[in-house]
Amino acid sequence: MRLDILVDTAIAEVVNAHRINLLSEELGSIDNGSAITLVTDPVDGTANAASGVPLSAFAGVIAVDGVPTEALTSWLDTGRCWHTVAGQPSPYRTNGRTELDGAAVSLLRPQPQIADAWWRVATRAARIRILSTSCLEAVLVTEKSTDAFADAGSDTHRIVDLAAAMVTVPAAGGAVIDVRGRPLEIDPDLTRRWSGVVAATPRLAEELPETIRGTEDR
Amino acid sequence: MRLDILVDTAIAEVVNAHRINLLSEELGSIDNGSAITLVTDPVDGTANAASGVPLSAFAGVIAVDGVPTEALTSWLDTGRCWHTVAGQPSPYRTNGRTELDGAAVSLLRPQPQIADAWWRVATRAARIRILSTSCLEAVLVTEKSTDAFADAGSDTHRIVDLAAAMVTVPAAGGAVIDVRGRPLEIDPDLTRRWSGVVAATPRLAEELPETIRGTEDR
Repeated sequence: MRLDILVDTAIAEVVNAHRINLLSEELGSIDNGSAITLVTDPVDGTANAASGVPLSAFAGVIAVDGVPTEALTSWLDTGRCWHTVAGQPSPYRTNGRTELDGAAVSLLRPQPQIADAWWRVATRAARIRILSTSCLEAVLVTEKSTDAFADAGSDTHRIVDLAAAMVTVPAAGGAVIDVRGRPLEIDPDLTRRWSGVVAATPRLAEELPETIRGTEDR
Repeated sequence: MRLDILVDTAIAEVVNAHRINLLSEELGSIDNGSAITLVTDPVDGTANAASGVPLSAFAGVIAVDGVPTEALTSWLDTGRCWHTVAGQPSPYRTNGRTELDGAAVSLLRPQPQIADAWWRVATRAARIRILSTSCLEAVLVTEKSTDAFADAGSDTHRIVDLAAAMVTVPAAGGAVIDVRGRPLEIDPDLTRRWSGVVAATPRLAEELPETIRGTEDR
C-alpha cells in the first residue's frame, strides 16, 4: 500500500544516514555492511490504518549480528509506545496465565484452510479478539490486557511481524514461539513464514500449538 | 463490574438533577416522569476497559416519548466523539457497500451455539474483526472504516447496545436491524435481547441476516 511505502521510504533515509542495515516488510533488505540491522514493520495493521480503524503500529527492532536487542512498538493512533532493551529490567509484566481454558486470546482472522484449528482455540478460550494488528496484540500481552495472541496455523507471519515481540514479550515473562516449532530467525529472506504464538507464559505458549495442531492430551 | 457502577452512578446523578428518565445497562430504569429518557451504555466494551485493551466507549441516546432523537458515542481511550441529531445533516457517511462478499465485517466473538452462522459470515467477508465493543464498531461503519457489524444470531444485544447506532447509522446512509426481524424498541425491560446488524446500506443489512439464518439464495 502507498501508506507503507511512504513510511518505509522515510525509514530507509534514516537507516542509510546511520549506515546500518534495514530489513523491512515493504522495502525488503538494505545491506549497508553494518553489524546492526533495523528490523521493522513500518505500519503493522495496514488495512486498519488505511480504512480508519484506529489500530495500527510501528514496530522496530535493533538486531546486532542477527540477535534482537532492543524493540520499540508505537501505537500510531495515539503515540503510545512500548520500549524494551534485552537484558535490562522490563517495565511490563504479563499476567502469568498458564492455561488456555478461559483465557483471552487474540487471533488472526479465520481462514477456511485452518478453520478447525481456529475453532479449537476459540472454543477453549473465554474471549476471542481479532484486532488485525499483530504488533499491538503482542504488546497487550505484556500489559496483562490479554493472555495470548496466535496465528492458528495459517503461516501468515513474517519475521518483521514477530521481531519486536521476540524482545518485549520474554522480558515481561512471556514467550514467543512458532506453532510448528520452527526457530524464529532474523533472516533477509522475507518469503519465510511462521505461525507466531505470543503468550503470557512459556507454558501457555506450549499449550496453544498443541491445541492448534489438535495434538493436545485432554 | 465496578467500573460500570462508578460511571452509571455519575450518570444517574445528572439524570436526576435534570428530572429526565434513565435507561441504563447497569442501573436499569429510573422513571422521573419525563417525556425524555437517556438511554445509555455507560461503558461499552467493559471487558476491554477493565483489562486495558484500549477499546471502550460511552454511548448515550436521548429518546423523546420512546423515539431516539440524538446520539453521542465517545471513545473513552482517546476522547474522540461521534454526535448525531436525527433529522439534521450528518457529518458521517458510510461507504455505500451493498454486497457481503468481500466486505469488512465486525462480529461478536464466536460462540458454539451459533458456530455455523458465524462461520458463514466469516467465509463470505474478506475481513473479520472482533473488537469487543459494539458501539465503537457501529460508528466505524458510519466513517467508511468498516462495512458492517453483526451479532450472528446469539441474541446478545440489549437495546442499550444498539440505541446510539439507531440514530447515527441511518443518518449516515446505513441501516440497523435485527437478525430475526424483531423491531428495535426503546423498552425499560432489559431482559429483551436482539441480534443487531449494523450495515453501510439497507441492502447489505438485509443480506447479513439471510446469511446468518442460512436462507440466502445463492
